Amino acid sequence: MLQWLRQYRRAQLAGDVSAGLVVAMMMIPQGMAYALVAGLPPVVGIYASIAPPLVYALFGSSMTQSVGPMAIVSLMTGAVVGPLAAAGSGLYTVLAAQLALISGLALLACGALRLGFLANFFSRPVMSGFTFGAALVIALDQADTLLGGAWRAPHWPSAALGLASLAALVLERQSMAALLRRCGLSALVADIAAKLAPMLVVVIATLLMAQTRYGRLGIHMIGAVPAGLPRLNLATSAAHWTTLLQPGLLIGFIIFLISMSAAQALALKRNEKLVSNAELIGLGAANVASALSGGFPVTGSMSRSAVNFAAGANTPLASVITAALLALALVAPTGWLAWLPLPTLAATIVVAVLGMLDVDTLRTSWRYDRSDAVAWLATAAGVLALGVQAGVVTGVALSIGTLVWRASRPNIAVLGRLAGSEHFRDVERYPAATEPAMLLLRVDANLFFGNVEAVSERIEDELRRHAEARDLVLVLSAVSAIDTTGLYALAELNQSLGRRGLGLHLAEVKGPVLDRLKHSDLLERLNGQLFLSTAIACDYLHARAAAVTAAPISF
Amino acid sequence: MLQWLRQYRRAQLAGDVSAGLVVAMMMIPQGMAYALVAGLPPVVGIYASIAPPLVYALFGSSMTQSVGPMAIVSLMTGAVVGPLAAAGSGLYTVLAAQLALISGLALLACGALRLGFLANFFSRPVMSGFTFGAALVIALDQADTLLGGAWRAPHWPSAALGLASLAALVLERQSMAALLRRCGLSALVADIAAKLAPMLVVVIATLLMAQTRYGRLGIHMIGAVPAGLPRLNLATSAAHWTTLLQPGLLIGFIIFLISMSAAQALALKRNEKLVSNAELIGLGAANVASALSGGFPVTGSMSRSAVNFAAGANTPLASVITAALLALALVAPTGWLAWLPLPTLAATIVVAVLGMLDVDTLRTSWRYDRSDAVAWLATAAGVLALGVQAGVVTGVALSIGTLVWRASRPNIAVLGRLAGSEHFRDVERYPAATEPAMLLLRVDANLFFGNVEAVSERIEDELRRHAEARDLVLVLSAVSAIDTTGLYALAELNQSLGRRGLGLHLAEVKGPVLDRLKHSDLLERLNGQLFLSTAIACDYLHARAAAVTAAPISF
Repeated sequence: MLQWLRQYRRAQLAGDVSAGLVVAMMMIPQGMAYALVAGLPPVVGIYASIAPPLVYALFGSSMTQSVGPMAIVSLMTGAVVGPLAAAGSGLYTVLAAQLALISGLALLACGALRLGFLANFFSRPVMSGFTFGAALVIALDQADTLLGGAWRAPHWPSAALGLASLAALVLERQSMAALLRRCGLSALVADIAAKLAPMLVVVIATLLMAQTRYGRLGIHMIGAVPAGLPRLNLATSAAHWTTLLQPGLLIGFIIFLISMSAAQALALKRNEKLVSNAELIGLGAANVASALSGGFPVTGSMSRSAVNFAAGANTPLASVITAALLALALVAPTGWLAWLPLPTLAATIVVAVLGMLDVDTLRTSWRYDRSDAVAWLATAAGVLALGVQAGVVTGVALSIGTLVWRASRPNIAVLGRLAGSEHFRDVERYPAATEPAMLLLRVDANLFFGNVEAVSERIEDELRRHAEARDLVLVLSAVSAIDTTGLYALAELNQSLGRRGLGLHLAEVKGPVLDRLKHSDLLERLNGQLFLSTAIACDYLHARAAAVTAAPISF
Repeated sequence: MLQWLRQYRRAQLAGDVSAGLVVAMMMIPQGMAYALVAGLPPVVGIYASIAPPLVYALFGSSMTQSVGPMAIVSLMTGAVVGPLAAAGSGLYTVLAAQLALISGLALLACGALRLGFLANFFSRPVMSGFTFGAALVIALDQADTLLGGAWRAPHWPSAALGLASLAALVLERQSMAALLRRCGLSALVADIAAKLAPMLVVVIATLLMAQTRYGRLGIHMIGAVPAGLPRLNLATSAAHWTTLLQPGLLIGFIIFLISMSAAQALALKRNEKLVSNAELIGLGAANVASALSGGFPVTGSMSRSAVNFAAGANTPLASVITAALLALALVAPTGWLAWLPLPTLAATIVVAVLGMLDVDTLRTSWRYDRSDAVAWLATAAGVLALGVQAGVVTGVALSIGTLVWRASRPNIAVLGRLAGSEHFRDVERYPAATEPAMLLLRVDANLFFGNVEAVSERIEDELRRHAEARDLVLVLSAVSAIDTTGLYALAELNQSLGRRGLGLHLAEVKGPVLDRLKHSDLLERLNGQLFLSTAIACDYLHARAAAVTAAPISF
């Protein structure tokens, strides 16, 4: 905690200041826009951009993560709170904050329980399909605001402004950096200036509304923004705790996944080590802080963090500066903000989410692994057809399904001896010799509840195929753990083989596995033996068979 | 389908008939009792014991499975329908059937999609803890019926009858078989006769009620049971489809898990092969049949199937005979059933579920793997504290958590060369020699979304530890699949190493993995090479390093 502050070097300051400034300029329109996506008053988006990054700077592990409102999380917030309260009502704002509190507490609990490994839960195609579907939903949701009415009956002055803003943003996005570079700015400065285009468009549109007759044509504007800093907010709605619990957990999960993928991409660029459990704590604390300061669920955003990174952020001090500047903006006269036209804000949202419409993952997985492409499509279709919450559930179901399916298919090899050696290899890949009286099987996975069934079935199949086998040797060289379910499966196999007069032997059992097996009665009851190596097992069984065959003679 | 009928041998008939008879005698009190557990009229339990086993005989894969009402599934049914409809109302019965329909259709869909591997989902400790908790809940729920009132204010005649029935059942359970054997019966016959004790106690208690003054002391009895076979029932409640959907899926899942564990235990005893997808279809069809004939969710029960097995069932014909006998019982005069006292029925339930209170798995896992014991306790506590549905969710969460956690911890070894050989082994386990300029890592798991994060982190850790390494060789001998997420991780690793001037090489890539990688651009972009074996990679890199070092001289 605050390690970065204790090790702060003066050389880092310039980068942090410039990044703080740039991100603050980016965050004013973005925060307000994402509050609108969540169905909240725009100022709530600014509130949610002050306390959360400050608190994240205290607890988070990423140096360049920028925590605040984010499009997909806002969409989910709106989808949860929308059916429970009237838009614009006090209850709506209370429930959004309550959702942030639940998500935040859940994230803190997961951090305390060290559940950071849950970040490994979504496959990249599922996450990409989810993002695609959610971005498309957000863009479509903004169409009415952009046009000032339904697309069949737009409010023409609004539509003109909205589409002009959209065109300006797209053009800026595509050519501003090149233009600025041609004007003699360095590539880095030009790129960053181009990222501030939304602020520029918002300022021009606001001036247009405030200073010209265009502002009196009935275009919807933000309206009065209350000045002053966010206040401590402890209001909650007792009636909705249980309703919000499950969506709050889902949103907490998505907050973590989105933030981790952003932070990982950045950590990779600087070879920094990211601690997923610290990230849980940082995000959890940030969301609790957001809830207590009248905000709504927040997360680290890939696009904003990338700007923070590119603008030179070296430490979380950049986020502290951003937060301070936003607080200043709220203390300064906010009257001019009232003239900010909603169609322009909608245009900034549309352009922001269009940047998330990545089909590269779909294209790659279509060529590389068709089942991953199907998962991508199913998740995106789930979000579009059933809504963003059902989309997450679809993604979770697909991920769990894939995980169980993959875990339930361990590699199992029948072993044979390489001629004249002590080496035993998979008979399907090597010219290895087997003996009919014994079956050697190597299981290439830890034995646990997810695969014991498959292992048992395969063993039975192989025993049917090797009907002459009198002994089964399980080679456990690749097994570094056997759980209780695996233990029971081995005990049942032992019993079943015993009834059929077959011996069960274990070879190459690893030290830790053996230590644990000694805490059970499997080894005592084993109707076979424990061998240090496959070669010893093979030689022993061979010799014993010869002795038995020879027995009548030597008798 | 019906393969058993085409191959039917006359010798199998005697066993099937006796098993059919025994199970029918067992099923009359059990079916009625489990209907009561679900909050349904007792006759519904008989209905649910006729069509489902018939249909299962057509579609199921187990030869000795006995499908019908089961305590835990009934408990879950009651927990779902209870809050939605008044006990004893027509709506209650409709909703229970509708739940069976949803579960049945879900099971059929899973069977069609070949999702049988989902049976590998619950670990044995989680399943055992869940069963323990559910059995305890059922027993406690029956206390009031057993005593004819709350335990502080029992209805004494009811309590006397209930406790006497309980004592009789426990005594019979413990000593009946021994007694009968001493009377000259064979062990098998004695055991089976002992299993019919509940029927005997029920008959005696019913006679006591009907023929003596004891029946007029205000003891609750079953009351008039409508005679006649179940009729086709297509009634559903439109308003409750969405409410029942999620619980229906959960119950379907539990039906499958319970039935599979019963069927597996039996298949193991006879070395029969169980096809989990066929089991899904059989159970799904049985539940749809139950719904259409006015029943409620059914499953294969461990205790009943074991009796079926022990009584000699050779084929599903035994179940057909059971169903026919139960249908006959309903056509015969059912007036006498009205006198069946509820305290006695409650006693049969308590005794049945006490048999499910297995702590052996807890004891074993406590000694063998403490984390499994914790999962047992958490699941049982979840059922007891939060209810049976929340208990399933707890179990699912624990299972998923464990699965992701285990999948996210692959074994990764730093390899070194065994002196004077071509063999490379884990340096922590063998005296193998490494070279500072190259790092050889072997990943002992398929690369997929569940573990790429852990693999990447471990690689970075090892690179930090081996700061002099100029080349990283990934030995993929144990990797038989790389999914899209794994592909991206390798591409990112390649990019990141490239930026640092390090080479990424792949060795011992399996054929199918290589074929798939050719569908991506990873191999083209690789800033290193592909080697057939680790030894070749090592020799090549060694020679190249020597050439570079030698370069200034040879220049």
